[in-house]
Amino acid sequence: MKTHLVTGGAGFIGSHLCDKLLADGHAVIAIDDFSLGTYENLIEAIKHEHFKFLEGDVANSSFWHQLAKDCPTNSIDVIWHMAANSDISAGVKDSTVDLHRTFLTTFHTLEAAKALGVKHFALASTSAVYGDLQSVLSEDSAPLNPISNYGAMKLASEAAATAKTSTDLDKLWIFRFPNVVGPRSTHGVIHDFVRKLNSTPRRLEVLGDGTQCKPYLHVIELLDAMMHTVRNSNEKINRFLIGPLGDKGTTVRYIADLVIRLYGTNAEIVYGNGNRGWVGDVPTFTYSTDKIYSLGWKPKLTSNQTIDKAVGEIVAELKSPVVALR
Amino acid sequence: MKTHLVTGGAGFIGSHLCDKLLADGHAVIAIDDFSLGTYENLIEAIKHEHFKFLEGDVANSSFWHQLAKDCPTNSIDVIWHMAANSDISAGVKDSTVDLHRTFLTTFHTLEAAKALGVKHFALASTSAVYGDLQSVLSEDSAPLNPISNYGAMKLASEAAATAKTSTDLDKLWIFRFPNVVGPRSTHGVIHDFVRKLNSTPRRLEVLGDGTQCKPYLHVIELLDAMMHTVRNSNEKINRFLIGPLGDKGTTVRYIADLVIRLYGTNAEIVYGNGNRGWVGDVPTFTYSTDKIYSLGWKPKLTSNQTIDKAVGEIVAELKSPVVALR
Repeated sequence: MKTHLVTGGAGFIGSHLCDKLLADGHAVIAIDDFSLGTYENLIEAIKHEHFKFLEGDVANSSFWHQLAKDCPTNSIDVIWHMAANSDISAGVKDSTVDLHRTFLTTFHTLEAAKALGVKHFALASTSAVYGDLQSVLSEDSAPLNPISNYGAMKLASEAAATAKTSTDLDKLWIFRFPNVVGPRSTHGVIHDFVRKLNSTPRRLEVLGDGTQCKPYLHVIELLDAMMHTVRNSNEKINRFLIGPLGDKGTTVRYIADLVIRLYGTNAEIVYGNGNRGWVGDVPTFTYSTDKIYSLGWKPKLTSNQTIDKAVGEIVAELKSPVVALR
Repeated sequence: MKTHLVTGGAGFIGSHLCDKLLADGHAVIAIDDFSLGTYENLIEAIKHEHFKFLEGDVANSSFWHQLAKDCPTNSIDVIWHMAANSDISAGVKDSTVDLHRTFLTTFHTLEAAKALGVKHFALASTSAVYGDLQSVLSEDSAPLNPISNYGAMKLASEAAATAKTSTDLDKLWIFRFPNVVGPRSTHGVIHDFVRKLNSTPRRLEVLGDGTQCKPYLHVIELLDAMMHTVRNSNEKINRFLIGPLGDKGTTVRYIADLVIRLYGTNAEIVYGNGNRGWVGDVPTFTYSTDKIYSLGWKPKLTSNQTIDKAVGEIVAELKSPVVALR
């Protein structure tokens, strides 16, 4: 049994990570400020005797000072930094959102790792660091010209973390996530569509022309990949893309059709113009997952199969009971 | 005549840039907080009628709010963001130095560009973004794993800037500098050696074994390259490495021998162990400057010729008159 600290532990991916670590027999300290996370996401975790939850803002150094007082040095084995703004569009409108929630959370969590004597650090990063790079994306693709503040502050986070490997960290894992879907998500295209149908069940407005095509990965597969990587990679800096099976992404049209079907409505779909949903959106990208495959991890679901599973889950989770009765 | 705003305008490179822009017939607004810059560096610039100096911290948003009140929208054509911590070693010891002086200066200057309606932005970046990447470095080299907080916060700055090209900026120039030397410098190996001889004229202690080998560029050539690039490049994001003539760097041994000779002492050189001067130091790197060559700019001096020139200048500038009388 090891002790894992999870920032953003009440959030979408963070809360699934807590559940997984507890199920694997570890002790977990989760931190969240409830800006996006919810208490409901931890409803299973809090039943566990080896689970501890702290409410706080990890971008605030005084939060960490207090924790360092309460927490013996070297008592935490791994920090999983999952706290971030996940609403890319919000960060494009106001740069300070990603500065604080995405970058400064990382900066101060890295400082905390040093203060707490934690040598192993896992960082949630993103395909958005590549911006509009038109090639099959791999770990070494360049140039890195993010087009959203979200992508920029994730790249900034990666940079701050790699610098710490020359002073404080023995091992760093950087995971560049594709679009991750599943229960407890707070943003994303499926989420948006279900919410829109909740308010207008006969009409679904889609941002862009629906040809946007990206790889989607289920959160359960993501966790499996991260666990496998942490167990099996041995470099000082371990950077991995994680993606679904095969090299095909899923179009927004596919998702729109499926959401309507599983929602049980005959809504008209109204498409917008162009393939860019909003400023900072990267309309199409393709992932090479050769590196993680060569480490012995392979996903079970293609991007479309992932969407098939996640749409069912998210409709079940979010579909308004009021609408359902109509 | 255009109006250029230069952050870090009283600093090493910033003050030379002000002189150059004024000499080329432009108006210049320089900003500096005198953390590293000096009034003496502006002694020529302040004589000029089209030069304006403002003392302030560009990482402080209230400084910019005041400036925006005093400054008509669209009255500034280009922002040159030169303000940064330039003492890499200081930033390794205390991460907040580079957070504030290198990254947050960039973040808030970018926000100011938006508020002031400035569409052209030039950013001083660095070879330190590559970390210890063992290949000939080009604009598209990857992965980017900086090993110092300085390099990390410069990469973070690049990222914050590229994101702004999807919303506020029409043109962005990112210059990755090698080691830049010349009058008015505040840090670096020549500087260190002269200062050491000022206190112990018979003994020069060198960090590392002296085999460290890096490309050095003279500040006057750097300015020439930046001006050429801004005039001649037409992408939205223009990233350029700037380096000296040829692909050979200069060893620390070469610099130590030359400093002693031009200082006029017969100091004993005492070398340390290993080729890494200090944590965060990148001992050797080689630059590809093919991209800027293909844009029609070529330096006049090799790295060794640059050092020959700069050592004379820096010894003349820094050699203690007290020592000289001994």
